[in-house]
Amino acid sequence: MEPIRVSFLGPAASFSHQAAVGCFGTSAELFPRLSFADAFAAVQQQESDYAIIPIENSTNGSVVQNFDLLADRFDLYEDVKVCGEHYLTVHHCLLAHKNWSQPDIRSITKLYTHPQAWGQCENFLVKYLKGVERQDVSSTSKAAEIVSLEATERSGAIASRFAAEHHGLDVLADRIEDKADNTTRFLVLRNVKSERTARFRFDDVKAPSTHIQSPSPNPAEKTLISFKVRQDSPGALADALLIFKERGMNLTSINTRPSQTRAWQYIFFVECQQIPTDQNIQNVSDILHDLQQVTERCRHLGTWKDQLAPVQG
Amino acid sequence: MEPIRVSFLGPAASFSHQAAVGCFGTSAELFPRLSFADAFAAVQQQESDYAIIPIENSTNGSVVQNFDLLADRFDLYEDVKVCGEHYLTVHHCLLAHKNWSQPDIRSITKLYTHPQAWGQCENFLVKYLKGVERQDVSSTSKAAEIVSLEATERSGAIASRFAAEHHGLDVLADRIEDKADNTTRFLVLRNVKSERTARFRFDDVKAPSTHIQSPSPNPAEKTLISFKVRQDSPGALADALLIFKERGMNLTSINTRPSQTRAWQYIFFVECQQIPTDQNIQNVSDILHDLQQVTERCRHLGTWKDQLAPVQG
Repeated sequence: MEPIRVSFLGPAASFSHQAAVGCFGTSAELFPRLSFADAFAAVQQQESDYAIIPIENSTNGSVVQNFDLLADRFDLYEDVKVCGEHYLTVHHCLLAHKNWSQPDIRSITKLYTHPQAWGQCENFLVKYLKGVERQDVSSTSKAAEIVSLEATERSGAIASRFAAEHHGLDVLADRIEDKADNTTRFLVLRNVKSERTARFRFDDVKAPSTHIQSPSPNPAEKTLISFKVRQDSPGALADALLIFKERGMNLTSINTRPSQTRAWQYIFFVECQQIPTDQNIQNVSDILHDLQQVTERCRHLGTWKDQLAPVQG
Repeated sequence: MEPIRVSFLGPAASFSHQAAVGCFGTSAELFPRLSFADAFAAVQQQESDYAIIPIENSTNGSVVQNFDLLADRFDLYEDVKVCGEHYLTVHHCLLAHKNWSQPDIRSITKLYTHPQAWGQCENFLVKYLKGVERQDVSSTSKAAEIVSLEATERSGAIASRFAAEHHGLDVLADRIEDKADNTTRFLVLRNVKSERTARFRFDDVKAPSTHIQSPSPNPAEKTLISFKVRQDSPGALADALLIFKERGMNLTSINTRPSQTRAWQYIFFVECQQIPTDQNIQNVSDILHDLQQVTERCRHLGTWKDQLAPVQG
């Protein structure tokens, strides 16, 4: 069998790269892309079997660029659907050049990382690296690359262990972030017309370690549906949301983006969940049928296995 | 009467400054603040009577920093509530130094503006200013300031007419944006414990020109309510949203932000609308009462007059 081809937002050793490896393992062929739009296009054009894109972060919230691409206002990605999800908990490390024979955190003279990471590691930096010169760079993986190429060997990078391995750096300190549970949720995309992903289904090709947050598999499935509400029809949004309840679907999240065709009209992205049974197998198509009566441009963006452990009360 | 004091996000001649003048007129005392958090704090500490903050843009969507401040996770702004709204349609102009005796668009040698504005004026720039050197700056008002201070007098800034007037520049071309209806909605904040804003109510002190989008006043009122859904209770979100429908309130928008206390738990911001009558005067307090049964940390963030013209079907 030809290897599975997966697109992700580069550069190499980015968090998306780490998610792609975590999700598909090392036997897949991984392609870094310059933008999220390029990753969507690669799936639409079947240059890639799958793409993996971040959709929300537990601290910072939704990745609006990817909701805009899912909205697909210009029908560029009409065959691209969600077929899975993957959770990646972000840990920051302090990295240094391997040639530094007796590395010592307190000897570091310059630090590189993405601007967001300074704030996420503030306690550690105040304690061990107060007053050290800081240089902003475009990504944490870029910071690791810079330190790997430096000759002075007294610089440090704040980046992931994955980036340390990729760029051949030493890890001087692990898990230096203030908040330990900063997790990003990724969605896996496929082309519904692709014969390859119909044969090599995501649930069969994904790495077994995908269930990182769930010791026992979660039996639930998630479904993502988008629609616009008719502006001339008061109560239409409540009517649309009520349909999910009537069909026994649990609403798990709602996101909105501007329709960009009319001011203050929105595209709603409703994610819902159910445990599939013989009785409710028709639920998603029934919901879509009902939604078409009260909304515009109603689209089923995919159904996939919930990878999050059920919350215990 | 002492003048009304209003905080906004600076610098001078910013879009928030323009919204403050449009909303409160020229008799108010206006205070530029360094951050949105400073504007919230000024109202909480009653250093200002009002603050005006952008909450969403018709093209780019929600201003998440301000939803995070409204979420008030650390109880810093517990007396700050919404008491009004204001719509500002953003127009870009090409500005030049007044001393340039025979200004000519095609003689401009360098352009300054905020990075977002290049893309918003692409058609005009391709037609008249192709190949001219571009310099990114932190805001369009900053671009106007730079050009006003330049001695060479062959530079141009892309900024608002308001910034031109503030910095004493000539307008070489007006409304150069590709998309004419790029509108930002601002919310007006007050301190509910402030005696001054109870006496000088926003609806009485605001400039009459506030109804820019509505030739006839809209009789409707909007209400903003936030809550968290209990994670151990499937269906709770649908139940919460159903309460608005049952009480006859029209849902106009839903926004979500991470709770930041538990991963994948959200704070929901629900905006709803009704035409106030003697019969429904109790509606908001009834909704709050009902929501407290199915949600956590349910808060009424304000009720104010809808400034948008009703959509005609």
